[in-house]
Amino acid sequence: PDAEAVAAADALQLRLTKPPGALGALEPLASKLAGLAGVCPPPLPEPAAVAIFAGDHGVHAQGVTPWPQEVTGQMVGNFLAGGAVVNAFARQAGVSVTVIDVGVATGDSDYKVRTGTRDFAVEPALTRAEVVAALEVGIAVARNLVEDGAKALLTGDMGIANTTPAAALIAAFTGVPAEEVTGRGTGIDDRTLAHKTWVIEGALAMHRPDSADGIDVLAKVGGLEHAAIAGFILGGAAARVPVILDGVIAASAALAAVAIAPDSIHAMVAGHRSAEPGATIALKHLGLSPLVDLGLRLGEGTGAVLAHGLVASAVRVLHEVATFDSAGVSEK
Amino acid sequence: PDAEAVAAADALQLRLTKPPGALGALEPLASKLAGLAGVCPPPLPEPAAVAIFAGDHGVHAQGVTPWPQEVTGQMVGNFLAGGAVVNAFARQAGVSVTVIDVGVATGDSDYKVRTGTRDFAVEPALTRAEVVAALEVGIAVARNLVEDGAKALLTGDMGIANTTPAAALIAAFTGVPAEEVTGRGTGIDDRTLAHKTWVIEGALAMHRPDSADGIDVLAKVGGLEHAAIAGFILGGAAARVPVILDGVIAASAALAAVAIAPDSIHAMVAGHRSAEPGATIALKHLGLSPLVDLGLRLGEGTGAVLAHGLVASAVRVLHEVATFDSAGVSEK
Repeated sequence: PDAEAVAAADALQLRLTKPPGALGALEPLASKLAGLAGVCPPPLPEPAAVAIFAGDHGVHAQGVTPWPQEVTGQMVGNFLAGGAVVNAFARQAGVSVTVIDVGVATGDSDYKVRTGTRDFAVEPALTRAEVVAALEVGIAVARNLVEDGAKALLTGDMGIANTTPAAALIAAFTGVPAEEVTGRGTGIDDRTLAHKTWVIEGALAMHRPDSADGIDVLAKVGGLEHAAIAGFILGGAAARVPVILDGVIAASAALAAVAIAPDSIHAMVAGHRSAEPGATIALKHLGLSPLVDLGLRLGEGTGAVLAHGLVASAVRVLHEVATFDSAGVSEK
Repeated sequence: PDAEAVAAADALQLRLTKPPGALGALEPLASKLAGLAGVCPPPLPEPAAVAIFAGDHGVHAQGVTPWPQEVTGQMVGNFLAGGAVVNAFARQAGVSVTVIDVGVATGDSDYKVRTGTRDFAVEPALTRAEVVAALEVGIAVARNLVEDGAKALLTGDMGIANTTPAAALIAAFTGVPAEEVTGRGTGIDDRTLAHKTWVIEGALAMHRPDSADGIDVLAKVGGLEHAAIAGFILGGAAARVPVILDGVIAASAALAAVAIAPDSIHAMVAGHRSAEPGATIALKHLGLSPLVDLGLRLGEGTGAVLAHGLVASAVRVLHEVATFDSAGVSEK
């Protein structure tokens, strides 16, 4: 990040017509984005684009969720028809929606790397080459959206069973036991939760992923949408465009992105705190504080889209608010 | 509230293409607003209007803040010129801004009840007639905005020293000691905080406000903007339009509104959690959970405006999201 731009933003915030620090977490956020852009004020994060990466998971065969795998492809259709929650939120926020099938079990897609991952309870989910291909999909999507004018990128995901690889990734990257990072996803019962945790523990013990090697971890226990989102973050960071992270899938992908390119952290904004316990553990590991904390556990990019208005508001302050001098307001 | 509309909203949420409860706090919020409107789905809360009620405070003479009183009037000018943080946030959110001088020490205004309150460290801040006049200002502003098409009302405030009456109101209505509800406002030091707390304790001991009589409490230790905001809430509730509360000033006014008309609670949405300790205590007493929790302590309506997009998103789900049936998505 550009330290001069951060310092300029910090100094500007003190001259604006408000008590110092009165905007709480929004002030360091605006300064961080000045550092990312290398200019103060940083660009308004508009227009913004949410990219929903969809994939299926071999580990679904282990019974980690009651939802049938076909729902992934059905929900892709729902996104394209504009009928999902993320579509409604995006219309409210004025955010564009792009859907990328990087690994759904059915259907055709220019971006599809594979029709779902292998079952990581049995074998590695992906080859290194497949991980690289999915990362490149994410990088390309980010680059295309930025070329088309996007000033903020928002992560979205769809994939029945995808909180299972997300928990495995978070356990692998943070070293926190599977028991603590594994959650109920769409709302599984105690017995399924215990089984899901056991599947993750077993896979980590079998594959022994190398937490310093992001591609290795993604290949052994990741997912295609997780890898593509990691690439999407890297692509946004390379373009110095803020990437607003959605929930637990994005948080697990962010750990992979940081393992691959540590500087990508400077582009990341934590959109919200998912109800999944692994999300909080991952964000803490990354040193990121979430903006929205309303118990959402839907994915799709819904939390990132909700957060977009908060990010834009934080930046807009640096563009538009009068200083004590310019407004003729007395200081204490 | 209309129990049938609430039940219809609860039932609809279960048929939409998302796991049950996956939208966390946004689901009961949307159902609450269906109950308020008496129809499911309830109207989208757009257009929305933030009303900033401004007033000065006799208790400023006690040295409860380092900011000069003239800043209240100067900030009114800043709001009208569009240069304050609330103006920037409102432009981001597409919310209109109305400024109402109900009690600033200087300047003319059709709505001014008095040029600031009396010093409640010495005598009651207001007469009952003055409180009623300020309540009527708030009711009239709410009615006018709704007549002009507003589908959501957002509270805003400006008044140097106004966290002092807010803390006194919260202590009086909740019975929680002044020590626990009094905060640093714009950021006062330990010594000023101790003095501010002592002033509030002394006023409560001297005036003994009757917590069952909202007008009595407002008259003895309130402020003109606090009373006007209480009226604004009552006006919104009477029109069955949601009122998004800003921070600690709004929370103290909400306690007064509930004391005057308990059913007004059904129109209230807690926009955010102010950094002021009294705000959390008041919201807990009201049974409201804040939507935004980012450490803001500015007032002006900034927290309410930030929350507006979240409220609109919650309601939009009920209007626009496909059902499992209509989208052809399988259920678990």
